Amino acid sequence: MTIKDARTPASTQNTAQADTAENTDTAEDTEAGKSIGWHKAYVEGSRPDLRVPVRQVHLTNGQSVTLYDTSGPYTDPLVGTDVRRGLAPLRENWIIARGDTEEYAGRPVRPEDDGIKHTSPRGGLRNLDAVFPGRPRQPRRGRDGNAVTQLAYARRGEITPEMEYVAVRENVSPEVVREEIAAGRAVLPANINHPEIEPMIIGKRFLVKVNANIGNSAVTSSIEEEVDKMTWATRWGADTVMDLSTGRNIHTTREWVLRNSPVPIGTVPLYQALEKVDGRAEELTWEIYKDTVIEQAEQGVDYMTVHAGVRLPYVPLTANRKTGIVSRGGSIMAAWCLAHHKESFLYENFEELCEILAAYDVTYSLGDGLRPGSIADANDEAQFAELRTLGELNRIAKRCNVQTMIEGPGHVPMHKIKENIDLQQEICDEAPFYTLGPLTTDVAPAYDHITSGIGAAMIAWWGTAMLCYVTPKEHLGLPNRDDVKTGVITYKIAAHAADLAKGHPGAQEWDDVLSDARFEFRWEDQFNLALDPDTAREFHDETLPAEPAKTAHFCSMCGPKFCSMKISQDIRRQHGSSKGEIEEGMAQKSKEFAAAGNRVYLPIAD
Amino acid sequence: MTIKDARTPASTQNTAQADTAENTDTAEDTEAGKSIGWHKAYVEGSRPDLRVPVRQVHLTNGQSVTLYDTSGPYTDPLVGTDVRRGLAPLRENWIIARGDTEEYAGRPVRPEDDGIKHTSPRGGLRNLDAVFPGRPRQPRRGRDGNAVTQLAYARRGEITPEMEYVAVRENVSPEVVREEIAAGRAVLPANINHPEIEPMIIGKRFLVKVNANIGNSAVTSSIEEEVDKMTWATRWGADTVMDLSTGRNIHTTREWVLRNSPVPIGTVPLYQALEKVDGRAEELTWEIYKDTVIEQAEQGVDYMTVHAGVRLPYVPLTANRKTGIVSRGGSIMAAWCLAHHKESFLYENFEELCEILAAYDVTYSLGDGLRPGSIADANDEAQFAELRTLGELNRIAKRCNVQTMIEGPGHVPMHKIKENIDLQQEICDEAPFYTLGPLTTDVAPAYDHITSGIGAAMIAWWGTAMLCYVTPKEHLGLPNRDDVKTGVITYKIAAHAADLAKGHPGAQEWDDVLSDARFEFRWEDQFNLALDPDTAREFHDETLPAEPAKTAHFCSMCGPKFCSMKISQDIRRQHGSSKGEIEEGMAQKSKEFAAAGNRVYLPIAD
Repeated sequence: MTIKDARTPASTQNTAQADTAENTDTAEDTEAGKSIGWHKAYVEGSRPDLRVPVRQVHLTNGQSVTLYDTSGPYTDPLVGTDVRRGLAPLRENWIIARGDTEEYAGRPVRPEDDGIKHTSPRGGLRNLDAVFPGRPRQPRRGRDGNAVTQLAYARRGEITPEMEYVAVRENVSPEVVREEIAAGRAVLPANINHPEIEPMIIGKRFLVKVNANIGNSAVTSSIEEEVDKMTWATRWGADTVMDLSTGRNIHTTREWVLRNSPVPIGTVPLYQALEKVDGRAEELTWEIYKDTVIEQAEQGVDYMTVHAGVRLPYVPLTANRKTGIVSRGGSIMAAWCLAHHKESFLYENFEELCEILAAYDVTYSLGDGLRPGSIADANDEAQFAELRTLGELNRIAKRCNVQTMIEGPGHVPMHKIKENIDLQQEICDEAPFYTLGPLTTDVAPAYDHITSGIGAAMIAWWGTAMLCYVTPKEHLGLPNRDDVKTGVITYKIAAHAADLAKGHPGAQEWDDVLSDARFEFRWEDQFNLALDPDTAREFHDETLPAEPAKTAHFCSMCGPKFCSMKISQDIRRQHGSSKGEIEEGMAQKSKEFAAAGNRVYLPIAD
Repeated sequence: MTIKDARTPASTQNTAQADTAENTDTAEDTEAGKSIGWHKAYVEGSRPDLRVPVRQVHLTNGQSVTLYDTSGPYTDPLVGTDVRRGLAPLRENWIIARGDTEEYAGRPVRPEDDGIKHTSPRGGLRNLDAVFPGRPRQPRRGRDGNAVTQLAYARRGEITPEMEYVAVRENVSPEVVREEIAAGRAVLPANINHPEIEPMIIGKRFLVKVNANIGNSAVTSSIEEEVDKMTWATRWGADTVMDLSTGRNIHTTREWVLRNSPVPIGTVPLYQALEKVDGRAEELTWEIYKDTVIEQAEQGVDYMTVHAGVRLPYVPLTANRKTGIVSRGGSIMAAWCLAHHKESFLYENFEELCEILAAYDVTYSLGDGLRPGSIADANDEAQFAELRTLGELNRIAKRCNVQTMIEGPGHVPMHKIKENIDLQQEICDEAPFYTLGPLTTDVAPAYDHITSGIGAAMIAWWGTAMLCYVTPKEHLGLPNRDDVKTGVITYKIAAHAADLAKGHPGAQEWDDVLSDARFEFRWEDQFNLALDPDTAREFHDETLPAEPAKTAHFCSMCGPKFCSMKISQDIRRQHGSSKGEIEEGMAQKSKEFAAAGNRVYLPIAD
């Protein structure tokens, strides 16, 4: 279905006429359950195979509202999905048409990729069915060492279908997208081996994005759970997902996630590399790491966190910290550097790494391995020393045509947040900043989605392009399904609050239509427009469950007599049938007061 | 028990020696349940009847940490409490000793005070047992029209026991407290008819405070529930509680709440006045309102929201708003003004009201009846016109020696928040600002504790003295017990994040001891120091329930191999037995690198 004028993140249009036809398409998605007030629609670009998904909310007053949608084909009842087959490779023809890539045999998948080096006592794959059964595929790479990156195309002046796609999605011109990518101020993570994704962009001129972390660990969780968490996270608005698995079956879990993901997938290759050396950091080598990166690039990982900024001389800077090194990758690299008393192999081989990433269009997410893990350690020498190195690495990556974003903290009190984004933008030539929170206090374990949501909203307002979510389980355990949802919703709030504060075109329309619905007591519209319609409806129904209450001009909070909005409406009704009339009548009264000095009390001398 | 050096909001001390004795006192509070790692203690002031409660957390390393405590005698197993008798009148002797007040017969309590004007079909009190059975008492008021307010005393240079009490609580000198109150920059809400409270202070130089709203409505909830919500809210850290009841039994509910509350209680007298005229705003009169204020002042209400700033000429300014008037009190007053086409009776009789409040030391909370109810309406003419009037009223109140704070919005996008606090401080001579949130977006009903927690943290950092909590039920229904807890915890986070950002002395010590415990894997200490120990422990136990896991050097999030803090500790162990040694050894390496130009790659020309 083509919606020609539904291109803003939250554009309104009167579709009273079209409604009848559209209602026949209304999503009967069982997962979405009660969310029957919206359906999946598509905005078509300049070519029929460029169809940008949107969430179209149908209001009871005949309006319809179009919202940005990350949920993929899963919420489109007209598209059949099967996790055992994977999603359709939307971008495949675009990639092939560019003619600069080639299929090749690829690196053979080995048992140790899934942590099965030692067969006893741990045994083989717990579940042999776990191997992804989808269509056979060969990996693809840039021909003749070409950098087949969106950055390379943008710099050449080419507007790719991917760029046009995100232009439609963000309601900007394709040229703006190309410019931002070419300047390194935005990234479009899109590995040529992940043709299933719906392209999206990360940059401060665009909508603030949210990443959700999933991943099993040695202690808990299974492949099925991780795939479910991924679709669940994107259903609630995650723009990218990082698979941070550290336990068994890393390769296979990632394959399932990638083949079923409509959003870019990020990883930290170091985690898998460490599994390959049985958790002994000092046994890591550049060769093992590089092999792991190629393995993951062939699978289609869209961006990789690389902790190349943790350099040997910076490790002592953490010695007097309250919480040392809290980044997993950072602590692994620090341990390696100290064990060998050598400079980081990631730092020393960074250019070679760039060449690999460029051949697949894997985007760098330069990790902040020395980020502060407590309020006491915020903005210290270790953190900023690493940031300066990230600035240096960013330039190398850009020289190699590799798209790059920079990761940021961490635990930072509010008054030290702005310095982080300002320094990062200056040192890293405005490369997109991608921050974890920051958490604004350490005292609330079990509520760190909130301690960090506060910092996230602020740093995004000031220019952070993507926010990595924090769930209520942070510091305590692995997030379950509910935690994933809570984390994503909290971060969508932070992101949208930032979009509003940045004055992002169209952002406020969403708030406006919801507030209109609230003032007019259109309860169903309020629910359907809410970030989380299910919970909003459930909370309302807890105290006023009856169906008539859905059209009542009050709620249980104040009851009918004390409903300010009801009184407000009554005022408008009783004192004029239009706003103009109230104003006119009242303006007269107002003038009388003004003429009388506009006060009842006389001015008070200080 | 006297703790002589436990005066900071989060001071640490080594009490290894005292531990044995103290452990015999450890709170066995059944409500607190699992929180056995802390107990209630008291810091004594200059006189034996001045004992300031603190929460003393005992750490497994022998340290003990003292935290600000609002939970009242309920968490002290050595004090017997009985909600049918009420709390002990701690301040009674202080009030009597001042010799400027008198007991008097008081206004007779009438059936209509509880909404029982019409006996049928609604019947009498649903539950006659509901009448508070505690000790008989007569109200007290200032003799000869004296202003018996902390403001009057402070201006006279007197340091009252209440001032000394908050000085101990806040770890500042009593003179600072007196000065801030005298200057109108802080309020100490303490009605002489509420001798049960543990005095606290609201002002930007002190810890940021949190208010929790409770109250039944015509639609739901009972007296018992409201008393329970009050003790529950203060248990989690609410510094004051507003009873916003609007249904039946308003007078009796309030009596139960007041007699059992260790924190100041606020109300909006207009709500009860409206009940007395059966919800017909136009039938309100100054006489009915004044009678209600006296009724509540005699009961002991510590601060009252008065919407005297909603003036007739401002009502038309709301005509083109997206969400009109969203304050209940504001909309009632606007309806009254329009119905009579007269200036607000609250505005016109404000000086007389001041005289009443001064006779009981009721603090004003000048309501922002025209606060924005949506992002679209933020910082508009209606809002700021009212603010200017609040500035005028603040000066009148101060002239009458009435303590005064100013209420603030509401729904405000992040980039418009600072203007609110800056203008308020300027217009209202730095009177304490008391804000509801603000909510930074409208799109997340069911998560408005978070949308507003973001705004609350920011505005508190910039100078707001007290934050009125918002629960997940905002816009949808009345909060239940869980919602109250979630609201309070969210706002304690916002308040503490602001204390940190303001550099409040002692604030960071709390974060520091918790982060120390985290780095050293003292899980029990982490839980006991957390804002919500129960949930932190529960989340940890969900994945690693076994008791040994409480001492494990990792958690389920990353598992043992990937625990950055474990690796960080191992590094310190392996590369030197002290931080100094690591530093020394590494500093040498660092120098070598510096000598080599501190980089592996050559500088890149731009």
